Order: sequence, then C-alpha cells, then structure tokens
Amino acid sequence: MSNRHAELGIDERPPEVGELTPPDRTLMGPGPSDVHPRVLRAMSTPLVGHLDPSFVEIMDEVQELLRYTFRTDNKWTIPVSGTGSASMEAAIGNLVEPGDTMLVPTNGYFGGRMKSMAERAGGEVVEVSAPWGEPLDPVDLERAFAEHQPDVFGFVHAETSTGVLQPNVPELTDIAHDHDALVIADCVTSLGGVELRVDEWGVDVAYSGPQKCLSCPPGASPLTLNDRAMDKVLDREERPRSWYLDLSLLEGYWGDDRSYHHTAPITNVYALREALRLVAEEGIEERWARHRRVAGDLKAGLQDLGLEMNAPDEYWLPSLNAVRVPDGVDDGAVIDRLLDEYDLEIASGLGALEGDIWRIGCMGYSARPKNVEYVLAALEDALARQGFDG
Amino acid sequence: MSNRHAELGIDERPPEVGELTPPDRTLMGPGPSDVHPRVLRAMSTPLVGHLDPSFVEIMDEVQELLRYTFRTDNKWTIPVSGTGSASMEAAIGNLVEPGDTMLVPTNGYFGGRMKSMAERAGGEVVEVSAPWGEPLDPVDLERAFAEHQPDVFGFVHAETSTGVLQPNVPELTDIAHDHDALVIADCVTSLGGVELRVDEWGVDVAYSGPQKCLSCPPGASPLTLNDRAMDKVLDREERPRSWYLDLSLLEGYWGDDRSYHHTAPITNVYALREALRLVAEEGIEERWARHRRVAGDLKAGLQDLGLEMNAPDEYWLPSLNAVRVPDGVDDGAVIDRLLDEYDLEIASGLGALEGDIWRIGCMGYSARPKNVEYVLAALEDALARQGFDG
Repeated sequence: MSNRHAELGIDERPPEVGELTPPDRTLMGPGPSDVHPRVLRAMSTPLVGHLDPSFVEIMDEVQELLRYTFRTDNKWTIPVSGTGSASMEAAIGNLVEPGDTMLVPTNGYFGGRMKSMAERAGGEVVEVSAPWGEPLDPVDLERAFAEHQPDVFGFVHAETSTGVLQPNVPELTDIAHDHDALVIADCVTSLGGVELRVDEWGVDVAYSGPQKCLSCPPGASPLTLNDRAMDKVLDREERPRSWYLDLSLLEGYWGDDRSYHHTAPITNVYALREALRLVAEEGIEERWARHRRVAGDLKAGLQDLGLEMNAPDEYWLPSLNAVRVPDGVDDGAVIDRLLDEYDLEIASGLGALEGDIWRIGCMGYSARPKNVEYVLAALEDALARQGFDG
Repeated sequence: MSNRHAELGIDERPPEVGELTPPDRTLMGPGPSDVHPRVLRAMSTPLVGHLDPSFVEIMDEVQELLRYTFRTDNKWTIPVSGTGSASMEAAIGNLVEPGDTMLVPTNGYFGGRMKSMAERAGGEVVEVSAPWGEPLDPVDLERAFAEHQPDVFGFVHAETSTGVLQPNVPELTDIAHDHDALVIADCVTSLGGVELRVDEWGVDVAYSGPQKCLSCPPGASPLTLNDRAMDKVLDREERPRSWYLDLSLLEGYWGDDRSYHHTAPITNVYALREALRLVAEEGIEERWARHRRVAGDLKAGLQDLGLEMNAPDEYWLPSLNAVRVPDGVDDGAVIDRLLDEYDLEIASGLGALEGDIWRIGCMGYSARPKNVEYVLAALEDALARQGFDG
C-alpha cells in the first residue's frame, strides 16, 4: 500500500460491485428497442483484430447490407464508430465548411441539434420553420432557399421528438438540388422501419442509429454519402474540425486502402452485421410493411383506450407513436408505473412537448404483436389508476 | 418491386450474407487483446434504456471502478462513447481553445495524432523532441516550456508505436504545473496494465481505450479530468468544436442531472463494467505486477530466440513489446504465417518504425503464460522458416 496514496486520501480498496443484473425490460420507448437474441449472441463472439483480413470481409458485408437497407448504391456507406449523434456529426461536420450556410428545420428537437453541430463546424445556420408536430412544407422550403441560398439543407425524416414523418421527400430534395445544395437526411428513426429510398429520393447524405428500427445495441451508426457529397468532403479547403469523425481519413480505412485510422468497435460491427442480416432475411419492403401493420394495431389500440395521437394520420410515424397525455393525467406517474410494475419502458415528451405527450416506440424487434398487446394492457391499467377511463 | 429502383439499377434482392464465423484468433497485437469470457457474456445481456434508473446505477458503478483503475478521486471520470481516439479527442478538443498553445511530443505515432487534434481544435501546436523509441527528457521539456509557454502539455505514457514507457511522470507534470499548464496523458496502453497513478503523479487529464490492458471490446473509452481541467472546460469562451464530445454537455448526462445528451453505448458500458470488475477482483497493483511478470517471461523468451527489444530495459513497456526484425527476415511473412498457421495476431511497426519492428502485445487477459508460450513457439517456427536461428 502506498503511503502517499493514503495521504492523498485515495481509497486503496477496490470498489465492491456485484454481478451485472439489470432488470428485464420490454423496450417500447424511443430507443433502444428490444434486441433480437441473435444479435445479442453475435455480441458475445470473440474478437478478431480491426485490421484482420477476416474483419475486412466483415466490413465489406456490413457495407453491402447497409446499402441494401438504405436503398442506395453509394460506395461511401459505413458504420461510424459511435452512437447516432456521432454519425450525425460526421455528416454535418464534414459537409459544412467555414463560410457555408446550412438550412435546418425548427419542427422538432433534432433540428436544434443540427444547428448546434453546423455552428461548431464553422457554418452559418438559417432556419426553415414549421411548428413542432408538423412536417416541413415545400412552399416554405422554396421560400427559405430563395431567401438564404444555403449550401447544405438538413431535415429530419422521422422526428423522434414529435412522432412525425416527413412526407414527400423527393419534393424537398428537388428544391435543394435546384439551388445546388446538398441534402442531409436524419433517418435515425426511419432506417429499417419506415420506407426510405436514399437514391430514388435524391438524398445526398443520410445517417441513422442502430438502436431504433434495426434493434441493434448502440455503438456503430449507419452513414451514407453519394459521390457528389463525398466530392465536397474530399475537396474541403480546411480539414474537418474533428479528427475522429474526419471522413477523408475514414475513407482510408473503409475504402480500398484498409489502412489504420482508429480501432473500430469490432463487436458493435458484428452486432450490426447480424441485425442487418435479419433485415435482409425479412426483406426491406416487408419490414416496412410489418412496422406499419404492427404499429397500426398499436395506434388503433391507443385510440380505443381514448387516447389521441399527436400527429395527424397523414404524418403518422409508425416507429414512434406520440400520444397526447389526457387532461388530469400525470404523465410521469404513468411512465413510472409501467417501469416499476411492468418492466416496460415508454418515454415522456422532449423539448417543447415535454409533459404533453408520451412517446411509444414500435421499432425492429419491438414491433411485434406481443409487445403491442403488453403495452396496451399495461397502459390501460396505469390510466385506470389515474382515474382515466377514456 | 419498384420500377424506378430497377431504372436506377439498385438491386432489389437482399445480399446473401452467411452466419458470423470469424476465425478464433489469439490476440497478441497492439489491441484488441483477448476478451475475458465474462466480458463477452456481459455483452450479450439484454439492454435497458440509457435513461433507465437501473442504468444510472450502472453508470455510477462504472465511474467508481474507473476511478479505482486510474488511481484517482476525480469526479469527472467517464467512459466516452467511442473508441480510444474519441476519448483522446474529447480530452484535447475540450482542453484546447482557439488561441491556446499545446505542446506535443515527437517520439512516437500518437504525438502526431495529438498535434492534428489540437490544430483542429483551433490551437497552436509546438513540439518537444525526442527520437522515436525514446522517452521525453525532462531537460528538453523544461527548455520547451521556457521557449513556448504552452497552455496544455500532452504526452504518451505508454507509446504503442515504439514499446516505450515514459518514466518519471511526476517530473514532467511538475514542470508543466510550474508553468501553469495542464497535462494530458495518453494512457491507452497503460491503464490497467502498467503502473499509473493519476492523482499522485499530478496528471490533470488522462484517457485510455478499453481494448488494451482492460481486455474489453472497443466502444466506450475511459477519460478522467481533475477539477482544474474541468474548470477550464466549463469556462471556455467558445464551445468545443464537436457537439458529440462536448464535455460540458456530457456533464449533464454523467453528472448529477442525468439529462439526455446522446444515447450511450449501453452494451459497451456493460462490458466495461465487467472488465473493470475483473480489475478490482485482481487488485490494481497485482495486475500491474502480473503484466510485468508475464511480459517479463515473454521478453526473456524473445531474447532467447535471439531477438532484440526495441526499447532499452529501463523504458520497456510490458504491455507492448517492440522487437527488432532481424536482418534478412521478412517481417510481413512472419506476421502472415502466425496468422494463417497459428491464428495468432501480432503487428508490424507503425510510422517511422514500419518494417523495423514487430509489436507483440501482452495485455489484460492476453497477459497469460499460455499466450506467451504460444507466441514464442509460433514465432520460433516462423523465424526458422525464414532461415533465422538466432
């Protein structure tokens, strides 16, 4: 034992921390969703090195599966070594250069995050407005483009904070391209659960997280860029402000060279591979259909309980069901009861909708009739405890 | 099937990717190291949400275990949501503000990475020189401080590219503190394997990776800052240039608020917890002793084979043994033979030492007599094939 340590007051005894025994939750919040047993099993696979020839093959396979899931032929389709916000910052931090202007939406929580990332990248930020809970209107977008002539336009395809799906994506990308701007789509809550066609819809850059409709533990996050976007990245005058997320360096690792940049999160790549295999086995279009079908039952069930959806039917987001909290009901008490009595996670509202809605996910492996029955039964009980009977 | 897709040339058929069956490697390279079966098992634990009260407890436990392993009382001790380079950039990108000067070493690969990160953070970079394969000399450091008066000084405690351990850390930190600078230590290849006493040695900020001496899959990376360093972070005039790695925002999640910032890599935190429990069970000082003992046998065995260590004994780094490639021996052919015939990973040199050395790790769960015997036997065979008999 070190006397100097004792003087410094550092406790030499190791902390006593018991075996890992987290509760067995059913995850029906905004993510993570329930992970498929095959994906959990893949995570316990012993590791190979991140430069091992066998890992290079695995990288190829993951890229191919990601392209299928994104519906793209983009060469630059990779998992970023971090959670969804890392792929988001990789997209924004590489596309936006000092002197660029980025147009971001105001209709949800994640447009605000885009703004902060673009400013930190050295960009000017301008906004296209729509109320929280509504999609962007192409007319407003056209006006914003005419006024600001932004270089980059970001929008949220599936807004996790409001439960709103942005319709008519090709209309938005057409407007942007008419003004020579590049389009970044936040697909965190849509990839693998809601129709998304990156190439066909003219999306230049799309990013996502694995722990939503892909039902994969967070840690390696999908990103795709077309050649036009990658050309801008590779032609930057100033290096991106993050070394870790510099796509011109990541290109060396994920591209033809396979040269060392950083240690990839090997196990998370294994898991993503297995999660994407499940997507391929099911078929992407059938997977979208399943989400609509199962979440449709959830929505109908919620309405039967006397609850009202936050989003109108035409913008309803199957993967994230935002439900209005009825008058007189304590949203937090319901959430706590579901967690304590049912080991069931749903979430409160975020930002401007805090206290007004619950957010009930229906994503990936959680988008099953069993989970829907369970959340409806539990919610009925919790609402009854609050004196609400629809 | 979509006709437009067919027109765009996107193959509608899902890729056929088989079951995950990576080879069963023995990992004796510079990381990842072999993962303990208990840690692999922890990774297949079903997830709870990243804001679940039970996860908050797990976060507390991981922080406590990290403090024990770093030998620190620092409140700001967290796993960063990414691999080791993410914790590195979190340290540098938050500590270095535009207008600051950072002093970095030239004696290995990772000083160059520090330079790139500090420049991207908006800092000026100056250098303190030492040849690759030698530690920093306090006399040179004193001179560099007198000349440049840097605000931040970074050094590499255990240089993975050269196999050199920086001795006399308290001398270095004293010089920096006499000049009112903050000290960042790269402990990627020392934490949990080589004596490291963050508080006692006056290190202000230390970062590491989990896949080296902690034998944990990469994805959540240790970082610790003392109050003095955190005060600088919280008093910045300009926000850090990465949103994802902004410690003032991460403080909201890992500090008392437990408010949402980003989705933590839950499974990687589970794994890190289990890996750190193994450290606590063994006892940190015994763990350092084991690394010296087992790697000492490795070093003796290598010398018995007629090989020469790259680092002199006094700077020998037990966790990363850099061995000179003998004249007339093809380093790549030996590496390939070990991988193909023995399922055994060791690595070539990096940067200035490419072709001159092999790098043989002896880290965490890989630091076992069994692995040492195996690598020595395999190497003896591979060298004989090259006509080398010591």
